[in-house]
Amino acid sequence: MTAAPAFTHFDLTTLPQAARYKLVTGIVVPRPIAWVSTLDTAGHVNLAPYSFFNVMGSDPPIVAFAPGDHAPGRPKDTARNIPAGGEFTVNLVDRALAESMNATATDFPAHLGEPVVLGIALEPGVTVCTPRVALSPAALECREVQTVLIGRTRIILGEVLGVTIRTDAVLDAGKHYLDTAALDLIGRMGGRGGYATTRDAFTIDRVTYAQWQEQQDAGGPAAS
Amino acid sequence: MTAAPAFTHFDLTTLPQAARYKLVTGIVVPRPIAWVSTLDTAGHVNLAPYSFFNVMGSDPPIVAFAPGDHAPGRPKDTARNIPAGGEFTVNLVDRALAESMNATATDFPAHLGEPVVLGIALEPGVTVCTPRVALSPAALECREVQTVLIGRTRIILGEVLGVTIRTDAVLDAGKHYLDTAALDLIGRMGGRGGYATTRDAFTIDRVTYAQWQEQQDAGGPAAS
Repeated sequence: MTAAPAFTHFDLTTLPQAARYKLVTGIVVPRPIAWVSTLDTAGHVNLAPYSFFNVMGSDPPIVAFAPGDHAPGRPKDTARNIPAGGEFTVNLVDRALAESMNATATDFPAHLGEPVVLGIALEPGVTVCTPRVALSPAALECREVQTVLIGRTRIILGEVLGVTIRTDAVLDAGKHYLDTAALDLIGRMGGRGGYATTRDAFTIDRVTYAQWQEQQDAGGPAAS
Repeated sequence: MTAAPAFTHFDLTTLPQAARYKLVTGIVVPRPIAWVSTLDTAGHVNLAPYSFFNVMGSDPPIVAFAPGDHAPGRPKDTARNIPAGGEFTVNLVDRALAESMNATATDFPAHLGEPVVLGIALEPGVTVCTPRVALSPAALECREVQTVLIGRTRIILGEVLGVTIRTDAVLDAGKHYLDTAALDLIGRMGGRGGYATTRDAFTIDRVTYAQWQEQQDAGGPAAS
Protein backbone atom coordinates (compact mmCIF):
# COMPACT_ATOMS: atom_id res chain seq x y z
CA MET A 1 0.00 0.00 0.00
CA THR A 2 1.35 3.39 -1.03
CA ALA A 3 0.87 6.40 1.22
CA ALA A 4 -1.12 9.27 -0.33
CA PRO A 5 1.23 12.07 -1.41
CA ALA A 6 1.40 15.20 0.75
CA PHE A 7 0.17 18.52 -0.63
CA THR A 8 0.93 22.16 0.24
CA HIS A 9 -1.70 24.90 -0.15
CA PHE A 10 -0.95 28.58 -0.85
CA ASP A 11 -3.62 31.27 -0.38
CA LEU A 12 -2.88 33.68 -3.24
CA THR A 13 -5.16 36.40 -1.88
CA THR A 14 -2.67 37.07 0.94
CA LEU A 15 0.60 36.79 -1.04
CA PRO A 16 2.54 39.58 -2.79
CA GLN A 17 2.63 39.75 -6.60
CA ALA A 18 6.14 38.28 -6.97
CA ALA A 19 5.10 35.17 -5.04
CA ARG A 20 1.88 34.80 -7.04
CA TYR A 21 3.90 35.07 -10.26
CA LYS A 22 6.36 32.36 -9.22
CA LEU A 23 3.56 29.99 -8.21
CA VAL A 24 1.25 30.33 -11.25
CA THR A 25 4.07 30.35 -13.82
CA GLY A 26 5.71 27.38 -12.12
CA ILE A 27 2.50 25.35 -12.32
CA VAL A 28 0.90 26.25 -15.68
CA VAL A 29 3.30 24.63 -18.15
CA PRO A 30 4.20 24.02 -20.94
CA ARG A 31 3.15 27.48 -22.23
CA PRO A 32 3.21 28.12 -26.00
CA ILE A 33 5.26 31.16 -27.01
CA ALA A 34 3.92 34.10 -29.02
CA TRP A 35 6.83 36.06 -30.51
CA VAL A 36 4.78 39.13 -31.37
CA SER A 37 5.77 41.60 -34.12
CA THR A 38 4.09 45.02 -34.19
CA LEU A 39 4.64 48.40 -35.83
CA ASP A 40 4.84 51.71 -34.02
CA THR A 41 3.48 54.91 -35.56
CA ALA A 42 6.92 55.71 -37.01
CA GLY A 43 7.10 52.32 -38.74
CA HIS A 44 9.65 50.69 -36.43
CA VAL A 45 9.12 46.96 -35.91
CA ASN A 46 8.88 45.78 -32.31
CA LEU A 47 9.40 42.08 -31.53
CA ALA A 48 8.90 40.54 -28.09
CA PRO A 49 8.05 37.10 -26.65
CA TYR A 50 5.02 36.33 -24.47
CA SER A 51 4.11 32.99 -22.92
CA PHE A 52 0.76 34.11 -21.52
CA PHE A 53 -0.69 33.05 -24.86
CA ASN A 54 -2.90 30.45 -26.51
CA VAL A 55 -5.54 29.82 -29.15
CA MET A 56 -8.99 30.29 -27.60
CA GLY A 57 -11.29 29.14 -30.39
CA SER A 58 -11.70 28.40 -34.08
CA ASP A 59 -15.19 29.79 -34.80
CA PRO A 60 -14.09 32.53 -35.21
CA PRO A 61 -10.37 31.70 -34.79
CA ILE A 62 -9.23 33.69 -31.76
CA VAL A 63 -5.90 33.92 -29.96
CA ALA A 64 -5.28 35.60 -26.62
CA PHE A 65 -2.00 36.94 -25.31
CA ALA A 66 -1.30 39.00 -22.24
CA PRO A 67 1.51 41.55 -22.08
CA GLY A 68 1.22 42.67 -18.47
CA ASP A 69 1.25 46.43 -18.03
CA HIS A 70 4.33 48.01 -16.37
CA ALA A 71 1.79 49.59 -14.01
CA PRO A 72 -2.00 49.88 -14.30
CA GLY A 73 -2.65 51.98 -17.43
CA ARG A 74 1.04 52.00 -18.48
CA PRO A 75 1.25 49.39 -21.28
CA LYS A 76 4.39 47.83 -22.76
CA ASP A 77 5.58 48.74 -26.29
CA THR A 78 3.79 45.75 -27.85
CA ALA A 79 0.44 46.75 -26.34
CA ARG A 80 0.90 50.41 -27.27
CA ASN A 81 1.40 49.27 -30.87
CA ILE A 82 -1.94 47.41 -30.89
CA PRO A 83 -4.79 49.93 -30.68
CA ALA A 84 -8.43 48.86 -31.12
CA GLY A 85 -8.58 46.96 -34.42
CA GLY A 86 -4.79 47.03 -34.71
CA GLU A 87 -2.82 44.33 -36.48
CA PHE A 88 -0.10 42.08 -35.11
CA THR A 89 1.71 38.90 -36.10
CA VAL A 90 2.33 35.97 -33.75
CA ASN A 91 5.49 34.14 -34.78
CA LEU A 92 5.91 30.66 -33.35
CA VAL A 93 9.34 29.69 -32.00
CA ASP A 94 11.24 26.48 -32.74
CA ARG A 95 14.35 25.14 -31.01
CA ALA A 96 16.66 26.78 -33.57
CA LEU A 97 15.17 30.25 -32.88
CA ALA A 98 15.13 29.95 -29.07
CA GLU A 99 18.25 32.03 -28.46
CA SER A 100 17.14 34.80 -30.89
CA MET A 101 13.72 34.88 -29.25
CA ASN A 102 15.25 35.09 -25.80
CA ALA A 103 17.47 37.99 -26.91
CA THR A 104 14.36 40.03 -27.82
CA ALA A 105 13.24 39.81 -24.20
CA THR A 106 16.08 42.19 -23.32
CA ASP A 107 14.79 45.57 -22.10
CA PHE A 108 15.92 47.61 -25.10
CA PRO A 109 14.79 51.27 -25.15
CA ALA A 110 11.55 51.69 -27.14
CA HIS A 111 13.26 53.46 -30.08
CA LEU A 112 15.58 50.49 -30.71
CA GLY A 113 13.64 47.98 -32.81
CA GLU A 114 14.71 44.44 -31.82
CA PRO A 115 14.91 43.05 -35.40
CA VAL A 116 17.29 45.85 -36.48
CA VAL A 117 19.45 45.71 -33.35
CA LEU A 118 19.69 41.92 -33.34
CA GLY A 119 19.75 41.32 -37.10
CA ILE A 120 16.55 39.26 -37.26
CA ALA A 121 15.29 38.98 -40.86
CA LEU A 122 11.64 39.81 -41.55
CA GLU A 123 9.20 39.10 -44.38
CA PRO A 124 6.12 41.20 -45.23
CA GLY A 125 2.70 40.11 -43.98
CA VAL A 126 0.15 38.82 -46.51
CA THR A 127 -3.13 40.15 -45.05
CA VAL A 128 -1.71 42.44 -42.33
CA CYS A 129 0.76 45.32 -42.31
CA THR A 130 2.94 43.73 -39.62
CA PRO A 131 5.86 41.61 -40.87
CA ARG A 132 6.66 38.06 -39.80
CA VAL A 133 10.02 36.65 -38.70
CA ALA A 134 11.50 35.11 -41.86
CA LEU A 135 12.78 31.94 -40.17
CA SER A 136 9.78 31.34 -37.90
CA PRO A 137 8.24 28.03 -39.01
CA ALA A 138 4.67 29.32 -38.60
CA ALA A 139 3.04 32.71 -38.11
CA LEU A 140 -0.49 33.89 -37.32
CA GLU A 141 -1.69 37.16 -38.86
CA CYS A 142 -4.07 38.78 -36.38
CA ARG A 143 -6.34 41.76 -35.84
CA GLU A 144 -7.31 42.94 -32.35
CA VAL A 145 -11.01 42.37 -31.63
CA GLN A 146 -11.17 43.03 -27.88
CA THR A 147 -8.84 43.98 -25.03
CA VAL A 148 -9.66 43.02 -21.45
CA LEU A 149 -8.08 44.91 -18.54
CA ILE A 150 -8.13 43.49 -15.01
CA GLY A 151 -5.68 45.45 -12.86
CA ARG A 152 -2.23 45.06 -14.47
CA THR A 153 -3.45 42.03 -16.43
CA ARG A 154 -4.03 43.10 -20.06
CA ILE A 155 -5.45 40.43 -22.35
CA ILE A 156 -5.39 41.17 -26.08
CA LEU A 157 -7.80 39.04 -28.11
CA GLY A 158 -7.09 38.80 -31.83
CA GLU A 159 -8.90 37.18 -34.73
CA VAL A 160 -6.55 35.06 -36.84
CA LEU A 161 -6.98 36.25 -40.43
CA GLY A 162 -4.29 34.12 -42.04
CA VAL A 163 -1.51 31.67 -41.29
CA THR A 164 1.86 31.19 -42.98
CA ILE A 165 3.48 27.78 -42.50
CA ARG A 166 6.81 26.40 -43.63
CA THR A 167 5.81 24.15 -46.53
CA ASP A 168 7.66 21.05 -45.32
CA ALA A 169 5.19 20.96 -42.36
CA VAL A 170 2.13 21.05 -44.63
CA LEU A 171 1.26 17.39 -45.30
CA ASP A 172 -1.87 18.07 -47.37
CA ALA A 173 -2.74 21.68 -48.15
CA GLY A 174 -6.18 20.75 -49.49
CA LYS A 175 -7.17 18.79 -46.37
CA HIS A 176 -5.25 21.19 -44.06
CA TYR A 177 -3.22 18.39 -42.48
CA LEU A 178 -0.10 19.62 -40.74
CA ASP A 179 2.97 17.81 -39.44
CA THR A 180 3.13 19.59 -36.10
CA ALA A 181 6.23 17.65 -35.04
CA ALA A 182 8.14 19.05 -38.04
CA LEU A 183 7.70 22.56 -36.60
CA ASP A 184 9.91 21.55 -33.60
CA LEU A 185 8.26 24.22 -31.43
CA ILE A 186 9.29 24.91 -27.85
CA GLY A 187 7.26 25.82 -24.77
CA ARG A 188 7.99 27.96 -21.73
CA MET A 189 8.49 26.25 -18.39
CA GLY A 190 8.77 27.64 -14.86
CA GLY A 191 11.78 29.37 -13.37
CA ARG A 192 14.34 31.73 -14.92
CA GLY A 193 14.78 31.01 -18.63
CA GLY A 194 13.14 27.59 -18.46
CA TYR A 195 11.98 26.00 -21.73
CA ALA A 196 11.12 22.53 -23.05
CA THR A 197 11.04 21.04 -26.52
CA THR A 198 8.04 19.10 -27.85
CA ARG A 199 10.19 16.22 -29.08
CA ASP A 200 9.04 13.65 -26.50
CA ALA A 201 5.59 13.22 -28.08
CA PHE A 202 2.94 10.51 -27.75
CA THR A 203 -0.68 9.92 -28.76
CA ILE A 204 -3.72 8.59 -26.92
CA ASP A 205 -6.86 7.48 -28.78
CA ARG A 206 -10.04 9.29 -27.87
CA VAL A 207 -13.01 7.04 -26.98
CA THR A 208 -16.63 7.93 -27.81
CA TYR A 209 -19.44 7.20 -25.35
CA ALA A 210 -20.73 4.45 -27.68
CA GLN A 211 -17.28 2.80 -27.74
CA TRP A 212 -17.01 3.14 -23.96
CA GLN A 213 -20.39 1.39 -23.50
CA GLU A 214 -19.22 -1.46 -25.74
CA GLN A 215 -16.04 -1.80 -23.67
CA GLN A 216 -18.09 -1.94 -20.46
CA ASP A 217 -20.34 -4.65 -21.92
CA ALA A 218 -17.25 -6.62 -22.89
CA GLY A 219 -15.78 -6.38 -19.41
CA GLY A 220 -13.78 -3.18 -19.66
CA PRO A 221 -11.03 -1.86 -21.93
CA ALA A 222 -8.65 -4.67 -21.02
CA ALA A 223 -10.91 -7.15 -22.83
CA SER A 224 -11.19 -5.20 -26.07
CA MET B 1 24.56 29.11 -49.36
CA THR B 2 21.28 27.59 -48.19
CA ALA B 3 18.06 28.27 -50.12
CA ALA B 4 15.40 30.10 -48.12
CA PRO B 5 12.66 27.68 -47.02
CA ALA B 6 9.33 27.74 -48.88
CA PHE B 7 6.17 28.86 -47.07
CA THR B 8 2.46 28.21 -47.64
CA HIS B 9 -0.19 30.81 -46.76
CA PHE B 10 -3.79 30.04 -45.78
CA ASP B 11 -6.48 32.76 -45.74
CA LEU B 12 -8.62 31.77 -42.74
CA THR B 13 -11.41 34.19 -43.62
CA THR B 14 -12.40 31.98 -46.59
CA LEU B 15 -11.98 28.54 -44.95
CA PRO B 16 -14.63 26.46 -43.14
CA GLN B 17 -14.43 26.01 -39.36
CA ALA B 18 -13.00 22.47 -39.46
CA ALA B 19 -10.07 23.66 -41.59
CA ARG B 20 -9.46 26.67 -39.33
CA TYR B 21 -9.47 24.35 -36.29
CA LYS B 22 -6.90 21.99 -37.82
CA LEU B 23 -4.58 24.85 -38.76
CA VAL B 24 -4.61 26.85 -35.52
CA THR B 25 -4.43 23.80 -33.24
CA GLY B 26 -1.65 22.32 -35.37
CA ILE B 27 0.43 25.48 -35.04
CA VAL B 28 -0.12 26.74 -31.49
CA VAL B 29 1.67 24.10 -29.43
CA PRO B 30 2.52 22.96 -26.80
CA ARG B 31 -0.76 23.89 -25.09
CA PRO B 32 -1.04 23.48 -21.30
CA ILE B 33 -4.00 21.35 -20.20
CA ALA B 34 -6.72 22.52 -17.81
CA TRP B 35 -8.56 19.51 -16.41
CA VAL B 36 -11.51 21.49 -15.07
CA SER B 37 -13.72 20.26 -12.22
CA THR B 38 -17.09 21.95 -11.66
CA LEU B 39 -20.31 21.27 -9.74
CA ASP B 40 -23.79 21.29 -11.24
CA THR B 41 -26.81 22.52 -9.27
CA ALA B 42 -27.52 18.95 -8.10
CA GLY B 43 -23.99 18.58 -6.73
CA HIS B 44 -22.62 16.24 -9.42
CA VAL B 45 -18.94 16.80 -10.24
CA ASN B 46 -18.10 17.37 -13.91
CA LEU B 47 -14.51 16.90 -15.06
CA ALA B 48 -13.30 17.72 -18.59
CA PRO B 49 -9.98 18.66 -20.26
CA TYR B 50 -9.38 21.89 -22.19
CA SER B 51 -6.19 22.92 -23.98
CA PHE B 52 -7.37 26.41 -24.94
CA PHE B 53 -5.99 27.51 -21.58
CA ASN B 54 -3.20 29.53 -19.99
CA VAL B 55 -2.28 31.90 -17.20
CA MET B 56 -2.84 35.50 -18.36
CA GLY B 57 -1.39 37.51 -15.48
CA SER B 58 -0.30 37.55 -11.86
CA ASP B 59 -1.55 40.96 -10.68
CA PRO B 60 -4.27 39.84 -10.13
CA PRO B 61 -3.54 36.19 -10.95
CA ILE B 62 -5.82 35.35 -13.88
CA VAL B 63 -6.28 32.21 -15.95
CA ALA B 64 -8.28 31.93 -19.16
CA PHE B 65 -9.80 28.80 -20.64
CA ALA B 66 -12.15 28.43 -23.55
CA PRO B 67 -14.73 25.65 -23.73
CA GLY B 68 -16.17 26.28 -27.19
CA ASP B 69 -19.98 26.34 -27.25
CA HIS B 70 -21.74 23.43 -29.02
CA ALA B 71 -23.50 26.18 -30.98
CA PRO B 72 -23.70 29.94 -30.30
CA GLY B 73 -25.51 30.32 -26.96
CA ARG B 74 -25.47 26.54 -26.25
CA PRO B 75 -22.61 26.05 -23.76
CA LYS B 76 -20.98 22.76 -22.74
CA ASP B 77 -21.57 21.26 -19.27
CA THR B 78 -18.41 22.87 -17.83
CA ALA B 79 -19.49 26.35 -18.90
CA ARG B 80 -23.08 25.83 -17.67
CA ASN B 81 -21.59 24.99 -14.27
CA ILE B 82 -19.67 28.30 -14.11
CA PRO B 83 -22.16 31.17 -13.81
CA ALA B 84 -20.98 34.73 -13.13
CA GLY B 85 -18.79 34.55 -10.03
CA GLY B 86 -18.88 30.75 -10.12
CA GLU B 87 -16.07 28.60 -8.79
CA PHE B 88 -14.01 26.01 -10.63
CA THR B 89 -10.78 24.07 -10.13
CA VAL B 90 -8.10 23.67 -12.79
CA ASN B 91 -6.23 20.41 -12.24
CA LEU B 92 -2.90 20.10 -14.03
CA VAL B 93 -2.14 16.82 -15.79
CA ASP B 94 1.07 14.82 -15.53
CA ARG B 95 2.21 11.89 -17.68
CA ALA B 96 0.78 9.37 -15.20
CA LEU B 97 -2.71 10.93 -15.41
CA ALA B 98 -2.78 11.33 -19.21
CA GLU B 99 -4.96 8.29 -19.91
CA SER B 100 -7.46 9.19 -17.13
CA MET B 101 -7.64 12.76 -18.42
CA ASN B 102 -8.20 11.58 -21.98
CA ALA B 103 -11.03 9.28 -20.80
CA THR B 104 -12.91 12.30 -19.40
CA ALA B 105 -13.01 13.78 -22.92
CA THR B 106 -15.52 11.06 -23.81
CA ASP B 107 -18.97 12.50 -24.57
CA PHE B 108 -20.72 11.08 -21.50
CA PRO B 109 -24.34 12.23 -20.99
CA ALA B 110 -24.53 15.26 -18.66
CA HIS B 111 -26.03 13.30 -15.75
CA LEU B 112 -23.06 10.90 -15.64
CA GLY B 113 -20.33 12.62 -13.64
CA GLU B 114 -16.94 11.61 -15.05
CA PRO B 115 -15.21 11.05 -11.67
CA VAL B 116 -17.93 8.61 -10.55
CA VAL B 117 -18.13 6.75 -13.87
CA LEU B 118 -14.36 6.48 -14.26
CA GLY B 119 -13.41 6.07 -10.60
CA ILE B 120 -11.29 9.20 -10.33
CA ALA B 121 -10.64 10.11 -6.68
CA LEU B 122 -11.34 13.69 -5.57
CA GLU B 123 -10.34 15.84 -2.60
CA PRO B 124 -12.29 18.84 -1.27
CA GLY B 125 -11.27 22.36 -2.28
CA VAL B 126 -9.71 24.63 0.35
CA THR B 127 -11.11 28.05 -0.66
CA VAL B 128 -13.66 26.93 -3.29
CA CYS B 129 -16.58 24.49 -3.27
CA THR B 130 -15.29 22.56 -6.27
CA PRO B 131 -13.11 19.51 -5.52
CA ARG B 132 -9.67 18.79 -7.00
CA VAL B 133 -8.44 15.55 -8.55
CA ALA B 134 -6.64 13.76 -5.70
CA LEU B 135 -3.67 12.62 -7.81
CA SER B 136 -3.23 15.82 -9.83
CA PRO B 137 0.20 17.23 -8.89
CA ALA B 138 -1.06 20.84 -8.83
CA ALA B 139 -4.45 22.52 -8.84
CA LEU B 140 -5.64 26.12 -9.17
CA GLU B 141 -8.73 27.19 -7.22
CA CYS B 142 -10.53 29.81 -9.30
CA ARG B 143 -13.52 32.15 -9.33
CA GLU B 144 -15.00 33.46 -12.58
CA VAL B 145 -14.45 37.21 -13.00
CA GLN B 146 -15.45 37.74 -16.64
CA THR B 147 -16.70 35.70 -19.60
CA VAL B 148 -16.07 36.84 -23.17
CA LEU B 149 -18.27 35.56 -26.01
CA ILE B 150 -17.17 35.95 -29.64
CA GLY B 151 -19.38 33.71 -31.81
CA ARG B 152 -18.90 30.13 -30.58
CA THR B 153 -15.68 31.14 -28.82
CA ARG B 154 -16.39 31.36 -25.07
CA ILE B 155 -13.49 32.55 -22.91
CA ILE B 156 -13.87 32.13 -19.15
CA LEU B 157 -11.52 34.33 -17.11
CA GLY B 158 -10.94 33.27 -13.52
CA GLU B 159 -9.02 34.75 -10.64
CA VAL B 160 -6.76 32.20 -8.97
CA LEU B 161 -7.60 32.30 -5.26
CA GLY B 162 -5.37 29.45 -4.13
CA VAL B 163 -3.04 26.74 -5.37
CA THR B 164 -2.47 23.22 -4.05
CA ILE B 165 0.86 21.62 -5.01
CA ARG B 166 2.30 18.18 -4.31
CA THR B 167 4.81 18.89 -1.57
CA ASP B 168 7.75 17.15 -3.26
CA ALA B 169 7.62 19.88 -5.96
CA VAL B 170 7.79 22.71 -3.40
CA LEU B 171 11.50 23.49 -3.01
CA ASP B 172 11.06 26.41 -0.61
CA ALA B 173 7.56 27.22 0.60
CA GLY B 174 8.67 30.52 2.18
CA LYS B 175 10.34 31.78 -1.01
CA HIS B 176 7.71 30.13 -3.28
CA TYR B 177 10.31 28.23 -5.29
CA LEU B 178 8.87 25.29 -7.20
CA ASP B 179 10.50 22.34 -8.95
CA THR B 180 8.39 22.52 -12.10
CA ALA B 181 10.18 19.51 -13.64
CA ALA B 182 9.04 17.33 -10.71
CA LEU B 183 5.41 17.94 -11.74
CA ASP B 184 6.10 16.03 -15.02
CA LEU B 185 3.26 17.89 -16.76
CA ILE B 186 2.21 17.21 -20.34
CA GLY B 187 1.07 19.55 -23.12
CA ARG B 188 -1.38 19.14 -26.00
CA MET B 189 0.02 18.95 -29.52
CA GLY B 190 -1.72 19.01 -32.91
CA GLY B 191 -3.64 16.16 -34.51
CA ARG B 192 -5.87 13.47 -33.00
CA GLY B 193 -4.80 12.68 -29.43
CA GLY B 194 -1.39 14.31 -29.75
CA TYR B 195 0.52 15.14 -26.56
CA ALA B 196 4.10 15.84 -25.50
CA THR B 197 5.91 15.55 -22.20
CA THR B 198 8.02 18.41 -20.79
CA ARG B 199 10.97 16.11 -20.04
CA ASP B 200 13.30 17.50 -22.74
CA ALA B 201 13.94 20.78 -20.90
CA PHE B 202 16.65 23.43 -21.23
CA THR B 203 17.40 26.94 -19.93
CA ILE B 204 18.60 30.14 -21.59
CA ASP B 205 19.94 33.06 -19.57
CA ARG B 206 18.12 36.34 -19.98
CA VAL B 207 20.32 39.37 -20.80
CA THR B 208 19.59 42.89 -19.54
CA TYR B 209 20.13 45.92 -21.78
CA ALA B 210 23.11 46.95 -19.64
CA GLN B 211 24.70 43.49 -20.06
CA TRP B 212 23.99 43.60 -23.80
CA GLN B 213 25.74 46.97 -24.11
CA GLU B 214 28.76 45.57 -22.26
CA GLN B 215 28.86 42.60 -24.65
CA GLN B 216 28.75 44.96 -27.66
CA ASP B 217 31.61 47.00 -26.23
CA ALA B 218 33.58 43.79 -25.76
CA GLY B 219 32.99 42.68 -29.34
CA GLY B 220 29.80 40.71 -28.98
CA PRO B 221 28.65 37.77 -26.85
CA ALA B 222 31.36 35.47 -28.26
CA ALA B 223 34.00 37.55 -26.48
CA SER B 224 32.37 37.49 -23.07
